This record gives sequence, structure tokens and C-alpha cells, in this order.
Amino acid sequence: MEQIKKYVADNQARFLEELFGLLRIPSISSESAHKPDMIRAAEYWRDAVLKAGADRAEIMPTDGNPVMYAEKIIDPKLPTILVYGHYDVMPVDPIDEWRTKPFEPVIKDGKIWARGADDDKGQAFMHAKAFELMVKTGTLPCNVKFMVEGEEEIGSGSLTKWLDTHKELVKADVILVSDTGMLAEDVPSVTIGLRGLCYVEVEVTGPNRDLHSGLYGGAVANPINVLAKMIGQLIDEQGHITIPGFYDDVQEVSKADRDAMAKAPFNLDEYKKALDIAEVQGEAGYTTMERTGIRPTCDVNGIWGGYTGEGAKTVIPSKATAKISMRLVPNQDYHKIGQLFEKYFKSLAPKGVKVKVTMHHGGTGYVAPTDTVAYKAAHRAVAEMLGKEPVPFRSGGSIPIISTFEEKLGIKSILLGFGLESDAIHSPNENYPVEQYLRGIRTIPLFYRYFAEGMKK
Amino acid sequence: MEQIKKYVADNQARFLEELFGLLRIPSISSESAHKPDMIRAAEYWRDAVLKAGADRAEIMPTDGNPVMYAEKIIDPKLPTILVYGHYDVMPVDPIDEWRTKPFEPVIKDGKIWARGADDDKGQAFMHAKAFELMVKTGTLPCNVKFMVEGEEEIGSGSLTKWLDTHKELVKADVILVSDTGMLAEDVPSVTIGLRGLCYVEVEVTGPNRDLHSGLYGGAVANPINVLAKMIGQLIDEQGHITIPGFYDDVQEVSKADRDAMAKAPFNLDEYKKALDIAEVQGEAGYTTMERTGIRPTCDVNGIWGGYTGEGAKTVIPSKATAKISMRLVPNQDYHKIGQLFEKYFKSLAPKGVKVKVTMHHGGTGYVAPTDTVAYKAAHRAVAEMLGKEPVPFRSGGSIPIISTFEEKLGIKSILLGFGLESDAIHSPNENYPVEQYLRGIRTIPLFYRYFAEGMKK
Repeated sequence: MEQIKKYVADNQARFLEELFGLLRIPSISSESAHKPDMIRAAEYWRDAVLKAGADRAEIMPTDGNPVMYAEKIIDPKLPTILVYGHYDVMPVDPIDEWRTKPFEPVIKDGKIWARGADDDKGQAFMHAKAFELMVKTGTLPCNVKFMVEGEEEIGSGSLTKWLDTHKELVKADVILVSDTGMLAEDVPSVTIGLRGLCYVEVEVTGPNRDLHSGLYGGAVANPINVLAKMIGQLIDEQGHITIPGFYDDVQEVSKADRDAMAKAPFNLDEYKKALDIAEVQGEAGYTTMERTGIRPTCDVNGIWGGYTGEGAKTVIPSKATAKISMRLVPNQDYHKIGQLFEKYFKSLAPKGVKVKVTMHHGGTGYVAPTDTVAYKAAHRAVAEMLGKEPVPFRSGGSIPIISTFEEKLGIKSILLGFGLESDAIHSPNENYPVEQYLRGIRTIPLFYRYFAEGMKK
Repeated sequence: MEQIKKYVADNQARFLEELFGLLRIPSISSESAHKPDMIRAAEYWRDAVLKAGADRAEIMPTDGNPVMYAEKIIDPKLPTILVYGHYDVMPVDPIDEWRTKPFEPVIKDGKIWARGADDDKGQAFMHAKAFELMVKTGTLPCNVKFMVEGEEEIGSGSLTKWLDTHKELVKADVILVSDTGMLAEDVPSVTIGLRGLCYVEVEVTGPNRDLHSGLYGGAVANPINVLAKMIGQLIDEQGHITIPGFYDDVQEVSKADRDAMAKAPFNLDEYKKALDIAEVQGEAGYTTMERTGIRPTCDVNGIWGGYTGEGAKTVIPSKATAKISMRLVPNQDYHKIGQLFEKYFKSLAPKGVKVKVTMHHGGTGYVAPTDTVAYKAAHRAVAEMLGKEPVPFRSGGSIPIISTFEEKLGIKSILLGFGLESDAIHSPNENYPVEQYLRGIRTIPLFYRYFAEGMKK
């Protein structure tokens, strides 16, 4: 413990500077112009883990962005931890709302400000530095593998395919992931659930060209009015999603589990105040924590059509488009949900328009057991480093690849995240407190120790 | 008649080249970056009418873009025609859909392709050239004034104010306007009605920042879902607008007038085919022509919010925005409609969001009598030049300033338009057939002749 703290204290400036190098690479996976940056980010990772003490590290091609794979096998008989992370980040728009440049990291008010500072460059890089710490201090208690991909923010499609031919390579006893958050800075927690995702794009086309709204207004279906009305019908007054069959496979959570969840600290007034909203809104019969933790959703993530410039233009556009994502809970299949959505959405359209539904990507929800060596090791590591028993909780977010790991590799994941709500991931002004970064680096070696010990028994 | 035809034939190439000079100026009134272009367009007009034979032509300042005023008074005792037009044009987006550059006019397939080719540079400039024709051939039968403004596409606010202090200057017996269309190339018509307009922008704000749709999805009101649902409620299944009081002042049209309107040539199958739509859509109980001619509307002209780039981004945006315009019919007051809209729209919002409604501009509808000297002169001129009796009809478009002229100056307008449906005004690939441009130049002097003759009696 003292050795860990000393090593982190002695090397803290360098740990930050090395992370900054990674943060300066604009590796936005959804924008094809950034292809070269994806390679640069993967190479940065390779060089970093080699320097930290890996026996082997390489950039492995996939159908899309490469996977950075690395390992240090100290004894094949010892257990193996597979660290998963991603080097890709979300887009940065609306760029005007950033107070600093997203790819020029700075430290201010004790926080690192940059796109990816938390998600997931900051959190994943803690593992590179914790690994270095264990190697340099001679305390690495087991084998380590690293698998860092470049498409997490767009659905991990290439990694999923790559896994089919690399099952043996990535074989491990547990997958360790830092890509989630804690309930609050003073409320340590270990994430035991994630939601699935079904992300679609819909396009409504009316007339074959933009029309003058005076000459045609009132006589033809306006694609924006139509799209709005269709979207408005997706959720009813009770907050239920109206897609027929949508809830059929939803795993209902027992009263006992809901009661246990309700014990996690949560202050509704503070929640509303932090978001500056007068009221929360969601499915009737569930609390705010339940609405994000155990219930599915249907959110429009983007919409556009017609004239969006300054002033006024009297136009009926030819088409209107929206990006819609549904968060899913365990047991809901995203392929099936995508099909149900498409069928229902098209049924809402009037005759005067054509509707196209395109699937972007999806993923399955995940629930982790708490009676495993890995969970217990995580729990103990967090409790010891943060001085407080962590709360197991279900996050509303999605890391689709986590359930893929279980399906394809048969390996459970442990979600040891240090993000905070205020980190604004996926938003302008993403940040990550320096202290959380260092806390992570300090906590991870404890997890290794307790996991390796637990596996011996 | 022969003299008119000969003059136009002899000067046709120059008439086109002079119009092209005006079309090359990107005078988009809704985009403030184009301020200098507004001045250039006004100056181009001033120089053109001076050269054509005006006694006086000047750029007159207003609170916004200037008014180009010109006149030729041949005898104060003779009647005076006031020509109205506008030198401003609509924005050009979506720019990708243009087959030629919007401000580099070209002639192809017998048409002039450019923003403003019809609306209203092409149509207004016919008056400059018809005026030249009458001056040069010594056939100008009355006094002429020109009033060409630069804010028609954004509501004519500055001209409206300018008129208060220039009533005497613009005094006339009739206002002559070419800013409307004919029913078809072989169906000449004179517009006797215009719709009013009430144009608003609405902004729905939820959380104070963009949120991760996983961590917050299902627990807070999503501004896009909310805005869509609110818009979806503005029109019911019967195509009626649901705003309480919206129809209170609507002037119902008599059965006799509707029967007369029904005689205008209209082919629904061709209409649908031209727009590539399976079905038309509108208010129950009215035909397509009635829906645009005598009934009010509520169309979303633009909408945006959240992530609109390539790929997927899982965000709940802080806000979503839409531009909404209502076409109004005679007797509906746009101020009152704007207030009714705002009150109703805000009432549709759930507690978790804030709604802002901003008025862009508005205008009153207009119906012209057909028993006037001016209407009869227009009817006769069109019949003679096009070889077919014109149909009087009500257009769905709006020229708010026309009713302002009547209110402020007490002068009726005559709407002698030569635009065609295929001109794609306000859309990409705006065009104006060369033949319509020349037809207009030939027809206008006949109007002057019959109007001057009629006024003598």
C-alpha cells in the first residue's frame, strides 16, 4: 500500500504527461476523416505498454480500426487478467460549447479537460500505468493481457469479428474494464449492470424536392411534421414505449433487488438542481435510478431537416432525418428490437411519405454476478483504497462488447470504473479529475493482488 | 403589338445579359454576411432604371436594407403606376443539391438557372426592360414609379416603416407586382389572392448541458422527443390545426366561389407524379387547390437538435429547435395568431423543459377585387399576349407587403406574375424560362396601355 502510494506520487507528473500525449490524438471513430488518427492512437498505446514492461505488444489489423494487443506472461500456471479499453472517442460537436480545445488537454481546477479525458483514454490508461507500477516494483502477481480497440463508440463491430479468430490469444480468467463511473466522488461503487443498445437512423421522404411552403403548404405531407408526429407516438403519456412487443423479453427485477437498489445514495433535488430542470420525467412506476438502471428507453439523439440557418426560410423540405437509440435491459435482443422498431415506425407513416430505417449498431445488456472472486477482489480493492465499502449498482450506459465477451469467450468482466457524473463524457468539456486518475492507478494493483490471491484458493 | 415584339426580339440577348448581372449578386437578405451585396443589388437596379429612361433613381436608406426608388413623371395629370419588386433572394442551402452554382446564371434547356431567376430578380427586372421599351419606342402612356426593396424574403419590415414617411413620394393609382405565378405555361392566370404568414421559431430546453443518453436516458425529458411530440399535436388526424381559436377569424369562402375555383384546370395525378408522392395530404373537406388557396396551414420549415453528423452519438441534447410557419387566409391577424400559437405551444410542454417562442415575421392575407380598371387591364393584356383568357386564382404564397400597401397607402395591387410551378423558387435549382421572361416584358406594356385607357373613361 505505501509502496503503491509512493510510486504514484513520485511519477505523477510523468503519468499525466503520458496521458496527455494520447489525448492530443483526435481519434474520433465515427468520422472517417480521422482514420490516420486511429492508427496513431493504437501505436501510442503499443509504445506505452512496451515501455511499461510488456513482453509483446502489437497493432493487429481488423476489418476496421486495429486492435492493440499486448501481454506479459510471467508464469503460464498463474491466473491471467485481460485488460480491455478503447482508444477511440466521441465526436466533439457542438464545438462552440467547449471552453478549451478538445484535443489540447489542460489541467484546471484539479481536472484534466479534453475529449477522452475520462472515456476512455483516461480510464484505460490508468491500467497501463498501474501495470508499469507493478512491473517496476516487482509486485505483478499474475499474467496480464491488454486488448485496446478503436471502435467502442461505434459498436465494436470489428473487434467482435476479430475475436472469432483470436479466442486463444485473449484467453483469460477475467476481463478488467475501467469505462464506467462511481456513484459520486465520496460514494465508491462497482458497476454490476449495463444496458444494451439499439441505434437506428430514420429518414422520412415526402416530395422529390424542397417545396415553397406557400404554394404547397397544406396540400402535401411535410416530412418534418410527419417525422415529429411519428416520434411523438413512440412513447405514451405514462412513459411507456409503444412499440408492440418491445417489453416482451424484459427481465423484470425482483422486489428484493429493487429494494436493495433503493439503498444506494441518491438525492433527487440535487439531481434536478445539477441539471437545472424543474422535474424529472420517465416511465411511471419507477424511480429515477430504476429508470436508468433497469428499464429500457427510446431517445432521439439527433434530428434535422429543412432550413436550419439564420432567419426564416419558407420551405417544405423533401426529407427529414433522426437518429434514435433505445437502451435495452438484460434479455432484450437488439436485432429483434431493431426489427420491431422498423415495422412499427413504418406503420406510423401516412401514405404521402416514404420511410427508411437504417440500423447503426447495437449491443446486449449485461448483469455481473457478485459472488465471484473478481467481484470480491474489486470490492475489497475499492474499499481499501477509498476507505468506504463500495455500492454495487447498475449503470444506464452500454458497453455492448461486454456481453459479447461473455458470449464469445465465456469470460466475465469486472467493471472497475472511476468516472464521475460531472465528467461530461460524450459532451462538450469532458473532464476527469486528476485525483480519480491517480486513485485508479493506485487501486488497480490492489485488485490484481486480491484477485490473484482469491484464485489460488 | 408588332412594335413590342420587334423591340424585344432585337434586344433579347442584352435583356438577358443585364438580368444576369443582377443574378450574379448574392443578395441573401436573411444572412447578415451579405449586407454589402444588398447595397450592390440596389445600386445595380438604380443604374439599370436610369439607363432605361428614369428621370430620377436613388438608393434610399431604411432601418435595414435600402429601397431603390425611381420615377418618370411624363405628365402629373396622367395616372401613375407604382412598380414593386424586391432585389433580395432566399438562402441557397442545401447547396449540394444545386446542379449549377446559384449565383452563376446559365441558360440551359431554354431556362435561366440561378437563385432569384424567378423570385424576384427575373420577374421584377421584366418591368425595368418593359419600361425601357416604352420609353425608347415613345409609347409610355402614363407616369411610372419604381420601388424595389431588399427584405421581402424576411418580411419587408424596413420598407413597412419607410412607407410611413414616404406616402406622398410613392403615391400612385395602382401597384404593379410580378412576384407570383401562372397556373401553367399554357394556362395563363392572374393572381387575386395571397395568404398571410406567421413565422415563429421555437426552442425547447431540457437539461443545462448535453447528457450521455445511457446514464440519463429514461430519467429526464429529452428535448427532441418533447419538441417532436409537441409538433405532432399541432395538427389532428383530420388535418385541422389544433391551436384554440386558430380558425375563429377565417373568412369562409362561399360555395359559389369554391365552385368557380374548381373550374380552374388541375390534374391531381399529374400533381402527385410531379412531386413523386403516393398521396396528397391536407385538411379534410377541401380539395388540393382549396387547401393552398383558401385554407390556413402549419408547416415546420426547419428542425434541428442533438447529433447530426456521420455515424452515431448517444447524446441527449440540452436543446432542440424548430422553425414553424403558418400560412393565413384573409381576416386572420398574424399578431393574434402568433400569440395563440405561443400560448398553446407552451401549454403542450411537460414540466421538465423550458420553451421559448420567438416571432420571426408575419403578414396579412390579401384578396383583390376583379371589377377594377387594373384587373381588367391585366386580364386583357394577358389574354391578348398569350392568346387565351386568363383564370383568376388564389395563390397559396404570401407577399405580406401587399396588404400593408393597402392598409398604409390605400392602393390596391395587381399581381401580374409569370412564374411557373417548375421554377423551384426557394429551392435548389431555381430557374425561369427565357420565354416567360420575354413574355413578361411583352405583356407589361399592354397592361400600361389598357390601364391608362381605362383610367381616362
